[in-house]
Amino acid sequence: MPTYRLDLAYDGSGFHGYARQPEVRTVQGELEQGLSRLAGPVVTEVAGRTDAGVHARGQVVSFRSDVSLEPSRVASALNGMLAPEVVVWSCRQVEDDFSARFSAVARTYRYVVLNRPLPDPFLRHTSWHYPTPLDVARMNAAAAHLVGEHDFASFCRGGDERTSVRTVHDARWERTDDRLLQFQITAGSFCHQMVRSLVAVLVEVGRGRLEADDVPGILAARDREAARGAAPPHGLTLWSVAYEEEAR
Amino acid sequence: MPTYRLDLAYDGSGFHGYARQPEVRTVQGELEQGLSRLAGPVVTEVAGRTDAGVHARGQVVSFRSDVSLEPSRVASALNGMLAPEVVVWSCRQVEDDFSARFSAVARTYRYVVLNRPLPDPFLRHTSWHYPTPLDVARMNAAAAHLVGEHDFASFCRGGDERTSVRTVHDARWERTDDRLLQFQITAGSFCHQMVRSLVAVLVEVGRGRLEADDVPGILAARDREAARGAAPPHGLTLWSVAYEEEAR
Repeated sequence: MPTYRLDLAYDGSGFHGYARQPEVRTVQGELEQGLSRLAGPVVTEVAGRTDAGVHARGQVVSFRSDVSLEPSRVASALNGMLAPEVVVWSCRQVEDDFSARFSAVARTYRYVVLNRPLPDPFLRHTSWHYPTPLDVARMNAAAAHLVGEHDFASFCRGGDERTSVRTVHDARWERTDDRLLQFQITAGSFCHQMVRSLVAVLVEVGRGRLEADDVPGILAARDREAARGAAPPHGLTLWSVAYEEEAR
Repeated sequence: MPTYRLDLAYDGSGFHGYARQPEVRTVQGELEQGLSRLAGPVVTEVAGRTDAGVHARGQVVSFRSDVSLEPSRVASALNGMLAPEVVVWSCRQVEDDFSARFSAVARTYRYVVLNRPLPDPFLRHTSWHYPTPLDVARMNAAAAHLVGEHDFASFCRGGDERTSVRTVHDARWERTDDRLLQFQITAGSFCHQMVRSLVAVLVEVGRGRLEADDVPGILAARDREAARGAAPPHGLTLWSVAYEEEAR
């Protein structure tokens, strides 16, 4: 059956997360409702199941359909039906065995911290306002401990996943201007709330309440209680997803 | 009576404009409600009475009060009371005869256009999405005709103001990245809807439906019908206000 790939962005502020749930507004719910008008009922797969309040710039969704579809018309038709918080960048037909979820080889997330005494009304939905000064060098020393294959059980919420072992390819903080700190992390995949749980610990290091060298011990504990909860969702954005097809 | 100056920013999306109106949510209404809890009833003056949906980064408000106030505490107390869409950058005591409105010698506004086929969910409240390509050089040629003292009656809405003669100090477009166009205009003051009315005409020039050299004729007509309506409010931000005190 022909398989299609959608690339999309959304402001997650007004959604109860990506994944469909009964009776609440979700990105998947609105997207599948739109798709059903074009292609009949379809089952979609997604690269990153973002939580309530989390955003996406480069989310990827796939679905199969026997209905004859003109991909470029699917994107514009969906944009006409969906709320302005969701934009479908493109729709294209891909290899029949493509899965937005299982074909993905890496996901990149960004987390933004507004680090100054006063908040910013224009960044309130897309950054975590953290007034206490943070030391980026300390946070990067801590982030370096995350790179490689580790059991991230201390940073995972819920236990419905087969394993909490993940491979982090890259994790670093950058000061993007005098007041904004941006964390970018790339891994093969992430367990639930992993990025926000990592950010919470790294911010504690940046503030001086933990040391960078405490991170290996927190990882080794494999215990959610060893970490520091989770940073708020609205600072987080699924930035991009990489597929093998692109590497070829 | 001691006079105080507030510098503030707000996301205008959820307000029916700056100016107080009965029974609707306004920035002035919320600000004066907060101030009244600190200083009793006060009368405020404002540098720029922004319309519904228009934002501010550098708005200035003044008020007089006989109540003994610690200015730095006023700012933090207001930030604690106001919605997160409003941030008071600072409060300070100024010369007794200072008026946010009448002491201002210049106002600067910025207008942002997202000029590409697809919208951006993260810019939907702070830019005008205009999908047709615009030619910035043409728009700057048109904007050059605005600089100097002119009767802007063709670009003013309503007739409650003494005169529609205004002096524009600077007006130019800039491409801030491959998809965003930013118009910045500075004048002593602006009549109602003047910036948005100018943007509507300049965009028509950028699109090729008007010529840059049509602008002098539109000005000379002194007739609102000679212009092209008004660009949407959400692309507009009151950027800064200049006072003589600062020039000294």
